[in-house]
Amino acid sequence: MPEHLPPSDRTRVRRVPQRGHYDRETVHAIVDAAYLCHVAFTDAHGVHCIPTACWREDDHLYVHGSNGSRMLRALAEGGQACVTITHLDGLVLARSAFHHSMNYRSVVVYGRFDVVPAEHKPASLDRFMDRIAPGRKLQVRPGDASELAATTILRMPLDESSAKVRSGGPKDDEADMAIPVWAGVLPITMGRGTPQPDGDIARETPDYVRGWPCTAA
Amino acid sequence: MPEHLPPSDRTRVRRVPQRGHYDRETVHAIVDAAYLCHVAFTDAHGVHCIPTACWREDDHLYVHGSNGSRMLRALAEGGQACVTITHLDGLVLARSAFHHSMNYRSVVVYGRFDVVPAEHKPASLDRFMDRIAPGRKLQVRPGDASELAATTILRMPLDESSAKVRSGGPKDDEADMAIPVWAGVLPITMGRGTPQPDGDIARETPDYVRGWPCTAA
Repeated sequence: MPEHLPPSDRTRVRRVPQRGHYDRETVHAIVDAAYLCHVAFTDAHGVHCIPTACWREDDHLYVHGSNGSRMLRALAEGGQACVTITHLDGLVLARSAFHHSMNYRSVVVYGRFDVVPAEHKPASLDRFMDRIAPGRKLQVRPGDASELAATTILRMPLDESSAKVRSGGPKDDEADMAIPVWAGVLPITMGRGTPQPDGDIARETPDYVRGWPCTAA
Repeated sequence: MPEHLPPSDRTRVRRVPQRGHYDRETVHAIVDAAYLCHVAFTDAHGVHCIPTACWREDDHLYVHGSNGSRMLRALAEGGQACVTITHLDGLVLARSAFHHSMNYRSVVVYGRFDVVPAEHKPASLDRFMDRIAPGRKLQVRPGDASELAATTILRMPLDESSAKVRSGGPKDDEADMAIPVWAGVLPITMGRGTPQPDGDIARETPDYVRGWPCTAA
């Protein structure tokens, strides 16, 4: 994949085009900051939008779930899908109602999913675990044959993707700058709450748990 | 709308059905906690998944944007759409790789959008502003005729909707309970960062700005 993706007719950002980004680094960073995505697809019942966990390996986005999932079965048939990841970064309060906005980072990916072959599933799930909790894959019971067999993993190339990013303060009309109202940004971040251990058996606290508590903003 | 929505063939939760909720109170609470949704729809280019700001009025979900938006123009034609709101509440770390999960609250709505008539647009945008920043509509410059004319507002009934919620700790197999690994939940919240005022003119700080800073967890 080249460093800069030529935008397709679907990925070119048209509303406020200066917010569009097509470079691999920007797209990857937004994907890697996410734990979940929304997947749009169609089946005999119409169009659907389903949230699911996701992770990236190289230039592919991965999702997984039970073989029985209606979404995974539909996506595995290889129909066209659109996957979107959005981070809301703030509410932008302007001096006029019209110029209120939001700060965000989003990626939209168009494509079709492929089924990850059985022999690649363990390594792929390890990558996912490393994304969630580095090193944990060596501490938990790994998936056994029946658990792996019950799990479908799908991946979609990031080839037809684009990012859209808004940051910074309000963009007010010059004539409104003297309006006596607070203007600025109310930042939104992913907050981390205090880890909640399960059960009463004392275990060593791993780094990814120790480092978790609120580091927001 | 009745207090309990009978699930449709599309909204009935099938994977882990005990996580499904069809009562108005649960659906409304999840919608009201969100600033944005993801909208899935189809047009001549295929299926799309686009994030956009949203708000609720009674039993409808509202979105808005420029008349020039491809999404709004497609949705205004009244085709079937699916709107999803997801709050990620935590990473659930189990003793086996297989039972790792996420805590979340989500709502999926199926339906078609109607165009909000011009005469109702000011009141509807006031409702949206009140949701973001109560009282602010009286402090900013309201939309003028051309700004209102340039804005499309659409609404979709919440009639065909369902919620899916997971909360609590890991559900491990009995045989795995003695595995010596930390297990529990890493909570995720919407964090609020320190407000960033725009410009250097001193203004009174409204309650919705004073009350904003990090109250996560």
